[in-house]
Amino acid sequence: MTQRIAVIGAGPSGLAALRAFESAKQKGAEVPELVCYEKQSNWGGLWNYTWRTGLDEFGEPVHGSMYRYLWSNGPKECLEFADYGFEEHFGRPIPSYPPRAVLHDYIAGRVEKSGVRKYCKFSHAVKGVTFDAETEKFTVTVKDLVGDRVFSEEFDYVVVANGHFSTPNIPYFEGVDKFLGRVMHAHDFRVADEFAGKHVLMIGSSYSAEDIGTQCHKYGAKRVTFSYRTRPMGFDWPEGFEEKPLLTKVVGNTCYFKDGTHVDGVDAIIFCTGYLNYYPFLDDELRLKTRNRLFPPNLYKGIFYEGNPKLLYIGAQDQFYTFNMFDAQAWYARDVVLGRIALPSPEEMRADWQSWMSREEALENADQMIDYQTDYVRDLLEPTDYPRLDVDMCARLFKEWEHHKAEGILTYRNRSYPSTLTGTVAPVHHTPWMDALDDSLEAFLNQPASQAAE
Amino acid sequence: MTQRIAVIGAGPSGLAALRAFESAKQKGAEVPELVCYEKQSNWGGLWNYTWRTGLDEFGEPVHGSMYRYLWSNGPKECLEFADYGFEEHFGRPIPSYPPRAVLHDYIAGRVEKSGVRKYCKFSHAVKGVTFDAETEKFTVTVKDLVGDRVFSEEFDYVVVANGHFSTPNIPYFEGVDKFLGRVMHAHDFRVADEFAGKHVLMIGSSYSAEDIGTQCHKYGAKRVTFSYRTRPMGFDWPEGFEEKPLLTKVVGNTCYFKDGTHVDGVDAIIFCTGYLNYYPFLDDELRLKTRNRLFPPNLYKGIFYEGNPKLLYIGAQDQFYTFNMFDAQAWYARDVVLGRIALPSPEEMRADWQSWMSREEALENADQMIDYQTDYVRDLLEPTDYPRLDVDMCARLFKEWEHHKAEGILTYRNRSYPSTLTGTVAPVHHTPWMDALDDSLEAFLNQPASQAAE
Repeated sequence: MTQRIAVIGAGPSGLAALRAFESAKQKGAEVPELVCYEKQSNWGGLWNYTWRTGLDEFGEPVHGSMYRYLWSNGPKECLEFADYGFEEHFGRPIPSYPPRAVLHDYIAGRVEKSGVRKYCKFSHAVKGVTFDAETEKFTVTVKDLVGDRVFSEEFDYVVVANGHFSTPNIPYFEGVDKFLGRVMHAHDFRVADEFAGKHVLMIGSSYSAEDIGTQCHKYGAKRVTFSYRTRPMGFDWPEGFEEKPLLTKVVGNTCYFKDGTHVDGVDAIIFCTGYLNYYPFLDDELRLKTRNRLFPPNLYKGIFYEGNPKLLYIGAQDQFYTFNMFDAQAWYARDVVLGRIALPSPEEMRADWQSWMSREEALENADQMIDYQTDYVRDLLEPTDYPRLDVDMCARLFKEWEHHKAEGILTYRNRSYPSTLTGTVAPVHHTPWMDALDDSLEAFLNQPASQAAE
Repeated sequence: MTQRIAVIGAGPSGLAALRAFESAKQKGAEVPELVCYEKQSNWGGLWNYTWRTGLDEFGEPVHGSMYRYLWSNGPKECLEFADYGFEEHFGRPIPSYPPRAVLHDYIAGRVEKSGVRKYCKFSHAVKGVTFDAETEKFTVTVKDLVGDRVFSEEFDYVVVANGHFSTPNIPYFEGVDKFLGRVMHAHDFRVADEFAGKHVLMIGSSYSAEDIGTQCHKYGAKRVTFSYRTRPMGFDWPEGFEEKPLLTKVVGNTCYFKDGTHVDGVDAIIFCTGYLNYYPFLDDELRLKTRNRLFPPNLYKGIFYEGNPKLLYIGAQDQFYTFNMFDAQAWYARDVVLGRIALPSPEEMRADWQSWMSREEALENADQMIDYQTDYVRDLLEPTDYPRLDVDMCARLFKEWEHHKAEGILTYRNRSYPSTLTGTVAPVHHTPWMDALDDSLEAFLNQPASQAAE
C-alpha cells in the first residue's frame, strides 16, 4: 500500500516538503501520497497578510504576524531557493530588500510552477495528532473550517511545519493591567499609520522591536522608546529614539525602568517579546518543547523527533537561513523517507543532536551563529540532490548584512548584494527605504531602466 | 461506583451547576463526584477582567470580553440569586447598576460561602470530549496549562458551561483590510481612554455597540457613529452620535454606508457583531450548532442534548435572564442526574424543544421576548427545590428597564428597582453614571448614609 505523509502547514517550510517530494517524483521516483493541511485560506504562511487579529472568522487563532509595510530585514540573496532564483521568477534582477508582497509572489511562483497546489487542503486546521505504536500509524484529526466538520485520517509520516512565529509570548509587567493606553504584542501589529504622532514603547531588543520601532518612526510616530532585558541594540538611533533597560512598572501612562528612569505620555506598549514554539495539536509524547534556539533539543539533524523519527519537524529552529534551509531540511527528510539515507541508531542520533546543541550553547556572537547555521545547512545539503547552494557565500552576505545594519539601521535596506546563484549584483532600489512609503509589488518593481544596474 | 460529572467552565453557568449539586449534598443527598475545569486562573468567567487580548500567556484564546469601566447594563434585581441576595452579600442595599468588580464580588461570594472551590481545577483547558456509546462514558481531555501536560479522564456526565460570548464573529467588509486606522472586535475592547478625542465607528446595534459607544463618549471620544444591518437603535442620542445603515466599504479613513452617505476621519472601527456559539473541544456528534437565540435547537429544556441527554448545556441561549436562569437550569439538570426528575421519551423531548423553538420564532418585540424567557425559567423552576424566585416581578422589572433605556440611554443607570427577594428599593447611587468615572468596588460602595434611602 502506498505510504501517506501529512504535512501540517503550507508556509515556506511545508511547501519545501511538498516541493522536495515533487522534485523526486518528477525525476521518476515513487513517492508517498502527500496531504498538506493549511489553516489559512491560501498558502504562504506568515507571508500572507491579514487585517484580522486575535481570532479569525472561524474562531481559530490568527496565524499571521505579518504587518503592512514590512520589507525583508535581510538580503533576499540569503534566502534564495537554489532551484528557483529571483531572476528566473521576475525575469530580471531586482533589489535586495523586497517588501512582503514581492517575497510572497516569489514563494508562490515556485510552488505554482511545480504543481503542488493539488496536495493542499486550505482552511483545514489540524486539531490532533496521535501515534499508534502497534500499527505505526499516525491519526491526524482535522477541522474543515468551511464545512464545519471534524474528521480523521491515517498517515505513515507527519511533517510538522506550522511555524513558530505565530503564538505570542506575552509576559506580565506590574501595572500593565491598568495602563491607560493600548497594549499589544507585535503579533497583532498591522498598520503603522495608527501610531503617527504617538509615543510608543517597544519591549524587546530583537527583530520585531527594531523593525516595528523603525517602521513606526517612518510613518510618523513622535517618539520610540525601546526597553531591553539584557542589552541595548545599540544602533546609532536618530532623534526621537531611546533605549531603556527593562520595564519595571506602569502607572497611568508613565513607564518606569530598571535604572530608575521613566518616560511619560506613553500611548502604546508593544510587546516584542517573541513567540512560543506551540504545537497544541500534538500528543504530549510527540510534542517538541523548546524555546526559540538555533538547535532545539530532541531533534536529530534538527528534524527527526527523538523516539519517533517518522515525525519530522521543518523550520522549528531560530533562523538566519530561512527558505533555503527549509529546503535543505525537506530534501534530507525526503531522502530518509524514500530510503536513500539511512538513520543511524537511536544512540548515535541522540549523541549527534546533543553535540550540535552543546556547540550552539558555546556561541558568542552573531558571526559565530551565522557560521554555525551555515555548517548545519551544509551538513544537510551534502548527501541530497538539492541544487548546489553556495553556503559560504551566504555566510559572507549575512555578515555583511549585520555590518550594514550596524552602520545604519534606517539605511541598510538601500544596499545591494550579489546573487549566490547567478553572481548578478542586485540593482539599487529606485527609492531609499525611508522614503518608500508604498510597499506594493507594483511600486517596487517599477524600476526605471537607468537604475537597473549599478 | 460513584458517578462523575465534568463541568466545563467556572463562570456563572458552571458555578450554578456546582452550587446546585452542593446544595443537594448539604441537604443529605448523595451526589456524583464533581470536577470543574476552568481555562482561566480564577472563577467568574466573563466577569473576570484581563488586560490581555487575542491569546493568553499559554497561547490559548483569551476568554474574556470584559472591559474596564463596564457597569451592569441591566438592573441587578433581575439577576439576583434566589439563594443569596445582594443584601446578604453586601450587608445592606446597594444601587441597581453596579460596576463589574461589584458583580464579580457578588458571584464569588456565593460560591466561596458554599465551599465549591475544591471542585475547580483552574488553568485547565478542555481540549476534547468524546463519548463511547458502549461504556456510556465521556472521555474528557484536558491541558494543564501551568504543568504543560495533557491528560484524559472519564465521566458519566458532561456539563458544557463555557459560555458563548467569547469567540468573536467578525465579518469582512470591502476595504477593511486596507483601512488606515484600528480595526477590532468588541471582544478585544479594554480601555475607553484610548479613544478620547477619536472618531469611532461601531458596527452593530445590540448591547456591545450601545454600551461601548456610550462608554467611549463618556471617556472623551469626539464622535461615535453606529452602523446597523436591520434597524437603528433609535435612542435619543446626544450631540456627537449618529446612526447609519450598514457599512458598504472602507477607503483610507472614510467609511461608506448603504444609503450612499459616508463619514470621514474614522480612527477606529469596532466590530460589535456578536459572538459564535463555539465548542471546539466537543466531538462533532456532541456539538451544538446554533446562532445566538433564546431557544437553540436540539436542547430539551434548553439543556439536554438531543441524542445524548447526559450532555448538559447551561447558559447556551441568548439571555435576558442570566445568573438566576443558569441556576434554574442547573437545579433542573441536577434533579435529572439525581433521578428526581425523569426525562420523557426521545420523541416527547424533541416535540417539546421544537415547540419552544417555534414559539420563539414568532416573537415580535422585547416585551414578548421577556415574557417568553420568563415562561422558560418558570417552567424549569417549578419541579425543583430552588428557593422561590418571583419571575413575574423580574419580567416587570425587565420591561421597566427597557422603557428606562428608551427614555435615556445615558441616564437609565441612575434608576432604582426593588429586590424581588426582599422588596427593598435600591438606593440611588451617589454619582450619576455619566459622572462616575471610577468604577472600583470601593468607589461604588462608598455611599454616603444620607443617600442610602430614597
